[in-house]
Amino acid sequence: MPRFEAKNPDYRTVATATFDRQPAMQSLGISIVRLEPGEVDLAMPYSEAWTQQNGFVHAGIITAGLDTACGIAAFTLMPANSDVLTVEFKTNLLAPARGDQFVFRARVVKPGRTLTVCDAQAFAEHDGAEHLIATMTGTLMALPRRG
Amino acid sequence: MPRFEAKNPDYRTVATATFDRQPAMQSLGISIVRLEPGEVDLAMPYSEAWTQQNGFVHAGIITAGLDTACGIAAFTLMPANSDVLTVEFKTNLLAPARGDQFVFRARVVKPGRTLTVCDAQAFAEHDGAEHLIATMTGTLMALPRRG
Amino acid sequence: MPRFEAKNPDYRTVATATFDRQPAMQSLGISIVRLEPGEVDLAMPYSEAWTQQNGFVHAGIITAGLDTACGIAAFTLMPANSDVLTVEFKTNLLAPARGDQFVFRARVVKPGRTLTVCDAQAFAEHDGAEHLIATMTGTLMALPRRG
Amino acid sequence: MPRFEAKNPDYRTVATATFDRQPAMQSLGISIVRLEPGEVDLAMPYSEAWTQQNGFVHAGIITAGLDTACGIAAFTLMPANSDVLTVEFKTNLLAPARGDQFVFRARVVKPGRTLTVCDAQAFAEHDGAEHLIATMTGTLMALPRRG
Repeated sequence: MPRFEAKNPDYRTVATATFDRQPAMQSLGISIVRLEPGEVDLAMPYSEAWTQQNGFVHAGIITAGLDTACGIAAFTLMPANSDVLTVEFKTNLLAPARGDQFVFRARVVKPGRTLTVCDAQAFAEHDGAEHLIATMTGTLMALPRRG
Repeated sequence: MPRFEAKNPDYRTVATATFDRQPAMQSLGISIVRLEPGEVDLAMPYSEAWTQQNGFVHAGIITAGLDTACGIAAFTLMPANSDVLTVEFKTNLLAPARGDQFVFRARVVKPGRTLTVCDAQAFAEHDGAEHLIATMTGTLMALPRRG
Repeated sequence: MPRFEAKNPDYRTVATATFDRQPAMQSLGISIVRLEPGEVDLAMPYSEAWTQQNGFVHAGIITAGLDTACGIAAFTLMPANSDVLTVEFKTNLLAPARGDQFVFRARVVKPGRTLTVCDAQAFAEHDGAEHLIATMTGTLMALPRRG
Repeated sequence: MPRFEAKNPDYRTVATATFDRQPAMQSLGISIVRLEPGEVDLAMPYSEAWTQQNGFVHAGIITAGLDTACGIAAFTLMPANSDVLTVEFKTNLLAPARGDQFVFRARVVKPGRTLTVCDAQAFAEHDGAEHLIATMTGTLMALPRRG
């Protein structure tokens, strides 16, 4: 498992601040539970408001958690005064998203000056166990921060 | 542009009912604006609640609209008493999701007994014009309906 | 269907030259059959040498044609003295790759200074008709040409 | 790292036989170097015949190796008298494919009765070290064997 060094000594502060400026994360009740250079875990409680026709959490909502986890993981390795943008991602849905809580775990696979590739996994916690429910591979881009 | 015939004469009723049973779509304010065999348009008004750190709608929320559009488009071509499940999708983010309203337009590329492949596009309406902001290719699976 | 203008007036010469410098294309017998700004068709005859266990052409070989078609289509819109690199792609296999000849048809969806997104389709010609057998969405990157 | 049990006691024989019946693998000089339930490593020597315009192995050829690795890995967990079909895959190209030899390493992420999801990595061996050059996530389908 490769570990990375952050170029920006304030990576924790700026990554957290970027996350906190996302109203979508607050609307979904998602929070950061672990943050290391190139690695992040987010958590989201179950809410009926985000379910589809079978009572499972909607694949798009799971994807919102996975995408943000990838974005923050990539962002921790970017230089100061960067902004991060998602270029593309691919999600495989492996099992129904049912559970009391969901964890979105991302890690950088390949950091780059312009493009960073991340892998992420979504887990559902139910019956006292963690179940892998979805995976993502995503490409993120570093941009000079606006303003 | 291939057009399809629905196997289920009640495709419109059951597709609409499946959509209406998704609390996530109500939470996001998404509605069906066009529904034909193998084709569907959904619309979503802008809400600050779904934005990320730059004020654009979060890629995961755009993906939720695209995924549901693909699911409903695929569902219109499935036999009666089916349920539809997303196997996987891939999203490319082409431009910032800013605008007053968003349209998610899906069409079936290849229907199948078990697996159906759909393409979808997300458009943002601003400055009186429609801008392509994202694309999806998704694989959907037909299952016998539960219960 | 959006049409594009080439920035490089010599786009046809340099795109063809880039294609011709790919030994893999010669090994597979792939040739350019149509080339416009942002659009390209390649053709490949059937060869048993590229088949898998059921006698159909291997998905990786179909992907090689689709990827090159995307790369050349993107390249026609890049400035002079660029090189083109594939960042990522996603392929859906829709039908068995059987036929006498295969066509790989790519078009640019979104050109960009750094990143260009292309869609491509693979068709198999058999029984006097063209069958859609695979689709690709790919992300290509412009780089300053080496040397 | 999850390990799996093969349902088919002859998994090694049938997986090897399926691989050996692929002319494309012979044409590319690819061979099986490790085979366990749900896991496979393939190897391919460098050949100029498979390069693109910069002298690196073509992304489609790398994809052919990754796709076959995923297919064989999925196949080892399928019941007797199955055939395996690729539904879709997504490849990220992380570094130039240069080296003396390439290894394609796949493992099953989620086996299923109908669909199996695999992850794979491509490594290039040069300067006495193994470099990660590409990743794939793929969806494979089990079918009853023909004939």
